[in-house]
Amino acid sequence: MKVAVSQMKSKPAFLEENAEKIVQASQRATQAQAELLVFPELSVNGYMAMDLFLNDDFVQAGKRKLEEIAKRINPNISALVGFVDMDKEKRGPENLLLRYNSVALLQEGKVSDVFDKTLLPQYDVFSEKRYFHPSRKKLNLAQIAGQRCGIQVCEDMWGHLYGQNLGKELRDAGADILINLSASPWTKGKLETRKKILEEMSRSNGIPAIYTNLVGSFDGYDGQLVFDGRSLAYDKEGNLIARGKKFEEDFFLVDTNAKGRMPTLEDSLIDDIYDALVFGIQEYVGQEHVYVGSSGGIDSALTLALAVDALGADKVHSVAMPSDISSPDSLEDAANLAKQLHIQHQVIPIGPMYTAYVQTLEQAFEGKEKNVTEENLQARIRGDILMALSNKHGGYVLTTGNRTETGLGYCTLYGDMAGALSVLGDVDKQEVYALSELKNQRARKEIIPKNILGKAPSAGLALGQSDEESLGAPYSTLAPLTNAFIEGRESRTNLETQYGPIVPDLLSRFHANEFKRRQAAPAIKVQEKSFGHGRRIPIYHGWK
Amino acid sequence: MKVAVSQMKSKPAFLEENAEKIVQASQRATQAQAELLVFPELSVNGYMAMDLFLNDDFVQAGKRKLEEIAKRINPNISALVGFVDMDKEKRGPENLLLRYNSVALLQEGKVSDVFDKTLLPQYDVFSEKRYFHPSRKKLNLAQIAGQRCGIQVCEDMWGHLYGQNLGKELRDAGADILINLSASPWTKGKLETRKKILEEMSRSNGIPAIYTNLVGSFDGYDGQLVFDGRSLAYDKEGNLIARGKKFEEDFFLVDTNAKGRMPTLEDSLIDDIYDALVFGIQEYVGQEHVYVGSSGGIDSALTLALAVDALGADKVHSVAMPSDISSPDSLEDAANLAKQLHIQHQVIPIGPMYTAYVQTLEQAFEGKEKNVTEENLQARIRGDILMALSNKHGGYVLTTGNRTETGLGYCTLYGDMAGALSVLGDVDKQEVYALSELKNQRARKEIIPKNILGKAPSAGLALGQSDEESLGAPYSTLAPLTNAFIEGRESRTNLETQYGPIVPDLLSRFHANEFKRRQAAPAIKVQEKSFGHGRRIPIYHGWK
Repeated sequence: MKVAVSQMKSKPAFLEENAEKIVQASQRATQAQAELLVFPELSVNGYMAMDLFLNDDFVQAGKRKLEEIAKRINPNISALVGFVDMDKEKRGPENLLLRYNSVALLQEGKVSDVFDKTLLPQYDVFSEKRYFHPSRKKLNLAQIAGQRCGIQVCEDMWGHLYGQNLGKELRDAGADILINLSASPWTKGKLETRKKILEEMSRSNGIPAIYTNLVGSFDGYDGQLVFDGRSLAYDKEGNLIARGKKFEEDFFLVDTNAKGRMPTLEDSLIDDIYDALVFGIQEYVGQEHVYVGSSGGIDSALTLALAVDALGADKVHSVAMPSDISSPDSLEDAANLAKQLHIQHQVIPIGPMYTAYVQTLEQAFEGKEKNVTEENLQARIRGDILMALSNKHGGYVLTTGNRTETGLGYCTLYGDMAGALSVLGDVDKQEVYALSELKNQRARKEIIPKNILGKAPSAGLALGQSDEESLGAPYSTLAPLTNAFIEGRESRTNLETQYGPIVPDLLSRFHANEFKRRQAAPAIKVQEKSFGHGRRIPIYHGWK
Repeated sequence: MKVAVSQMKSKPAFLEENAEKIVQASQRATQAQAELLVFPELSVNGYMAMDLFLNDDFVQAGKRKLEEIAKRINPNISALVGFVDMDKEKRGPENLLLRYNSVALLQEGKVSDVFDKTLLPQYDVFSEKRYFHPSRKKLNLAQIAGQRCGIQVCEDMWGHLYGQNLGKELRDAGADILINLSASPWTKGKLETRKKILEEMSRSNGIPAIYTNLVGSFDGYDGQLVFDGRSLAYDKEGNLIARGKKFEEDFFLVDTNAKGRMPTLEDSLIDDIYDALVFGIQEYVGQEHVYVGSSGGIDSALTLALAVDALGADKVHSVAMPSDISSPDSLEDAANLAKQLHIQHQVIPIGPMYTAYVQTLEQAFEGKEKNVTEENLQARIRGDILMALSNKHGGYVLTTGNRTETGLGYCTLYGDMAGALSVLGDVDKQEVYALSELKNQRARKEIIPKNILGKAPSAGLALGQSDEESLGAPYSTLAPLTNAFIEGRESRTNLETQYGPIVPDLLSRFHANEFKRRQAAPAIKVQEKSFGHGRRIPIYHGWK
């Protein structure tokens, strides 16, 4: 069978735009004489529409749009299109009509059959049981162009990992081919798992498998999810026969009788992270300008480099905001970086505001020692300046804090945490270095100057401050230890054995800063387990 | 049967503290010669422990604590205690052992039986399918003191509303009495629904029903939930025979043979809101001090009054931060209010900082008109000052914005939105007035001065500014209309018919400000549908 895969960007609740893309893809597929055309999961409504799925009008409008699509597609081609289906009568909690994460089989100008997702993920960032009920059919089998197609929606294939082998069930019922419509967000290493499942599923069942994945970067309620595309097709021996591009829309044809001849796809994790961040920025920011505080440190340098790759140099504005204690070196490093990146660079000293605050608050602070308050004030003045620039000229502020700092609360709420998107909020400090090196390698020159790469990290809020001294350990310890805190799988005893006596202090820092993270800008999700909606720890709890 | 109800505050993951309370209640129950003692849902682990439920060590520690409790309770009394149970082998997604929202029947020094929740709510703020699997038993029936007790956990009773009548199933299987262990967060009007279900359940089945509810206010991931207690007991004719206090721990006895003689419980919605807000502040803030920006307007006045009722006057600090355009009247109103409330009042003018920002940014703003930027700057200076005071002296900043403003984005991110807890973030502007009047009624004097109650609301960020002029309608329209936007049940056409041509502008304001709400301080949840985790609308979407 000749199958066309449309790896499209279906945007949340952009019904019109999504429908046009579906119709356009059908024209390409018709020209290419494909017998079947496959789209990603929930392609009409957009996978990330969240609670809009609970809105009856939205679901009805999606169903009308689907009928319209069915009429506009060439009657000689079959298409599998994802949409939200809704029961006409049956209701559940909150008096809502039951809904399904469904796939329409379009044939001869109409919806000839509907299949629903069986396994609804309700872990990490996924909340599908909030919206959908499981499949109304026992088996999702369709007759298409003389073949029996087993139809799966995303998680239906992941059940493979926890003893729910739906692929085998479909094969046992006579499927000649497996087709999966997915919306699988990329995280580090995710591709490996997808490949493993698809290889095993096609080989062990002895039938080809075609996997169409969503592409785009969308709000995931509390974090920015990146869908990488990279649709995949395997022959019946588990060899790769076709694949889609990463982080962009794609359209390709698969002959299901073809034999595998492509080399196994290799992940390059660090490249993937870089590209995912660039893509995440592009998709969030669109045509807007961005403002970034440039301290002369590595985090802001990498954020600026990524922003330039994402948006172009003319859209990126670097702002140095020195205080009395900022070193001239830092200022020079920030200026050099901007020169390397060919971006606008402004220097706005924070002294006048800082002096005004300190003098104004003198009476209120009487008898009190200098403490973190004065450091926070500096960070907040910088946040206010960046917000003022973006308010006045339009555009967004990008925050520059990394996952390790966010974990340890080594950041100021409403200060360096102020902004629309956190570029590195899910990238640990060691990865920040690796990504900066990668940038220079890719550019074949020192875009991020050696000075910045080599200096000791400092928040720059007090004289002679060094992050590693303030936090009590080098980043080579802090980064993996914080990752372990976030993942929450290792016991405290194990961590103490591995990392020594700094663990209790860092763990209590980690716990005490949950409140800051709740008010953080959304971060581009990179890791399997990230701060945000996929990891819900109470602000105040008794578990140590 | 003589049943003791322990309406306890079981705190998330405070295993030790929760266990001690359970043992203490058992001593009281033993003294009172009760045959059965009932606790709220998940009483050992704490209902709001969220993703800590996914931590194996935490679940194991809870189970050990349960065994310890069983040994410490008098062997002659039976107790029903909520805890998280975990399968020894069976695993699901993410390779996690299956978990249950369970009830242990403690008898004779050990766990004699375990029952699990059947209906797991996965709507609004509830995410139980993220953690738990449904009941392993077909029927939750226990033999206790010669009676057959039908055991339910919270939602098992709410299924009554959507055709899952578990009460009847238990009765048909021989139950003599229904016992429900709950953790049901209070929202406006919730008590009415609970009463309706319990009355109908006991009357239609002809058996008594006892309902034990959690009390406390806990982080609900993105909003502060308030559990009101108000445990209830009904005789077999559907008459109320006993009830627990609201917003505090309680312990009471129920004779299930007693006949109803209590008057039907009446809700007073506005009183409930007031008390819930006071309780929410108490529970969040504990023994800390709070700082509140006092503008001379109604929102900050009510916030201060509530804080004083919650924490006492010595813990509450009022801060007026006038600018050049602040009216002397406003300042005087703020000072009068502080006098009425007997709280510390400081005046910190923002002029010096504002001047410093404007002069410093002169070059960066060259050629640009004054706009919302300058207004935001004023709000952010005020936010910075309040944060500095709380950083320097310890304690929390309470934000003062209401639900109507939050809905329309009539607030400044990192400005008046900066703080640890939003007291009125789920209270609409009309309710703000009603609560202020209530405060004065309760105090039998003008705690909140008439001047404040009577003046036209203004953000005070530009000369002669009036909220109602800026927003294009009076609050008597803005408040219900914004509520309708939040609830999302009415079609736009219906709203336009009802509210006229202002709808499109206000609706686009509403949609455009989703990003601000994501970074807001958690608000005390008051309404059935609130901003936050129970209402997840994408920051960017195509549904108009």
